Amino acid sequence: MPGIFTLVSTDGAARRGTLALAHGDVETPAFMPVGTAATVKGLTPNDLRDFDARIILSNTYHLWLRPGGETIAEMGGLHAFMSWDRNILTDSGGFQVFSLESRRELSDDGVRFRSHLDGSAHEFTPENVVAFQERLGVDVAMALDVCVKLPTTSHDVAEAVRRTTLWAKRCMAARTRTATALFGIVQGGLDEAMRDRSARELIALDFPGYAIGGLSVGESRDDLYRMARFTASLLPIDKPRYLMGVGTVRDLIAAIDGGVDMFDCVYPTRCGRNGRALTRAGDLAIRNAAFARDPGPIDPTCACAVCATYSRAYISHLFRADEMLGPRLLSYHNLALLAALMADARTAIGTGAWAAFRDSIAPAALDAVASPG
Amino acid sequence: MPGIFTLVSTDGAARRGTLALAHGDVETPAFMPVGTAATVKGLTPNDLRDFDARIILSNTYHLWLRPGGETIAEMGGLHAFMSWDRNILTDSGGFQVFSLESRRELSDDGVRFRSHLDGSAHEFTPENVVAFQERLGVDVAMALDVCVKLPTTSHDVAEAVRRTTLWAKRCMAARTRTATALFGIVQGGLDEAMRDRSARELIALDFPGYAIGGLSVGESRDDLYRMARFTASLLPIDKPRYLMGVGTVRDLIAAIDGGVDMFDCVYPTRCGRNGRALTRAGDLAIRNAAFARDPGPIDPTCACAVCATYSRAYISHLFRADEMLGPRLLSYHNLALLAALMADARTAIGTGAWAAFRDSIAPAALDAVASPG
Repeated sequence: MPGIFTLVSTDGAARRGTLALAHGDVETPAFMPVGTAATVKGLTPNDLRDFDARIILSNTYHLWLRPGGETIAEMGGLHAFMSWDRNILTDSGGFQVFSLESRRELSDDGVRFRSHLDGSAHEFTPENVVAFQERLGVDVAMALDVCVKLPTTSHDVAEAVRRTTLWAKRCMAARTRTATALFGIVQGGLDEAMRDRSARELIALDFPGYAIGGLSVGESRDDLYRMARFTASLLPIDKPRYLMGVGTVRDLIAAIDGGVDMFDCVYPTRCGRNGRALTRAGDLAIRNAAFARDPGPIDPTCACAVCATYSRAYISHLFRADEMLGPRLLSYHNLALLAALMADARTAIGTGAWAAFRDSIAPAALDAVASPG
Repeated sequence: MPGIFTLVSTDGAARRGTLALAHGDVETPAFMPVGTAATVKGLTPNDLRDFDARIILSNTYHLWLRPGGETIAEMGGLHAFMSWDRNILTDSGGFQVFSLESRRELSDDGVRFRSHLDGSAHEFTPENVVAFQERLGVDVAMALDVCVKLPTTSHDVAEAVRRTTLWAKRCMAARTRTATALFGIVQGGLDEAMRDRSARELIALDFPGYAIGGLSVGESRDDLYRMARFTASLLPIDKPRYLMGVGTVRDLIAAIDGGVDMFDCVYPTRCGRNGRALTRAGDLAIRNAAFARDPGPIDPTCACAVCATYSRAYISHLFRADEMLGPRLLSYHNLALLAALMADARTAIGTGAWAAFRDSIAPAALDAVASPG
């Protein structure tokens, strides 16, 4: 069976590719907007199509609790429920459940937890999270994994790797739907030997794609970049590589440089709700008084509808007046900016210009709130 | 000078007309979406164009305090600031200031008040509210009036009428900009003699349009309908008549039946934010559990983009999950529904079918939360 991923070109470790999924092709590198509860916060599917998003992420944990798999199935699946006819990837719920900490209990069988909404008792097993994601009809499902917070002990990392492999096998065995591609998740913390073991054990199971999990969970930026690059180097060249939880301009550039193809993060939409505007020259705190009479767009290099239509002054006013339109416009811009950044990265990789493009995005400034002007 | 209003046809007291303003024609009866702080909450100008809104309302009081006339003027006026190239009407700020009660002090000169935002001291005079609205570059400005809460004493009503006329004269004298049409506001509470006096005194000043103020402020529905109809009957047939603060389906139908041409109200957008969906068969509390698996649209008779795209189940989920997209979608639908209601009312009046149309909108059910189903 041919794989779902075609590697189109490479430039150093950076890769350009195409991911063929049930709801259409996805050009990579690709950033996936996060739609936790069956909605990218504040935006419609038409908004996402404006900047040609081809795949979004939604969360098993949240959908499991509300509105539940039965409701979504009855409404025709997740695509129909939210009126999104392009691809959807769901996470396995593992990450959310592990962040519950005191409200969950882990065994080789699975993980029992209590809902953050009403305290009700639930259990995730490798089998039931695969069944749930298949029931939603998603295009990419994630295997149930064990994600540990960093820093942690080497014993805990080894246990997480062991259980992740055990569960990965059971997830593979539980599949019933060919239109849903199941990805395995490499764990191993900041330990190269553990990452290597986890990758080898999962590669032996021949997943159609691999995620790099257990990063962006409290480690330093240097550790993140080093481990993402190291783990990517362990993975098959003909399979997509997805770094979970990464979404600042700087981190995306570094991870693409290390050979990663896919990303998701709440960062652009959370920033959008909080008045933090992403630009290629650094983030802006749009409420800042210096923007109150600034007639220019959020980012003069951005071609999105928000930058074409509204001034910094107006968006600054919306946030200072606590108007709903502010979060909507800034979430749109932030996602459109990352979509354009990914498109430019693909072009650069395809034309052998990756290093120049990468270096044109000044890394030191990228996550600081830039001076207004 | 020809007036701004052309009466196209009548059917009983109901009127169909065209209002020619600086940013294009407005077919009447027309409902004006409220954009208090230079934004119709949650919606973009493109959204408003979807259902062919031709005029929106914004609030002098709010814009005066934030972002202020200087900022808006520097950004090219209110149209440019909010990227809306159709008509804008601003109220005079009188209504908001009078609702401050303990924080304002009234004299024949004007009204001194303290900001609800920071307690800072301000004063509205007939002259400065006209100058402010002209500075914003709006298409319709409202004269500063004295609005009394109901019930009240006949002395207070008479004083409000006296001051409203005094200020109306000063507003007329303060005009400097021909592209801004100034409307006078008829006061007089629930007293027909006072309404008659107020209307006569304002008509003598020859405003290009007249508002019916001081209603929808606590009186019964019967009193509202009776006084709106009575006041409309006092006004010149060749001038537009604007009933302030009315916006339920039932109230709009009753007021059109009484000869009113223009309306504004926060009702559809406030309901939209709170999960109350307007339909021609009554309002729906969309969070209601009975809608959780309802695959139908909000209103099966509605042709708006939200009803064409999303189910009650999905919108119900958005509200139960406290997702921003819920208020956005429902605000859009509620305004689109009123826009379509106005378009149908215009057609009915134009074809002599007003009474049948009016009676097809079952009045008793219209403001109750209808049973789901």
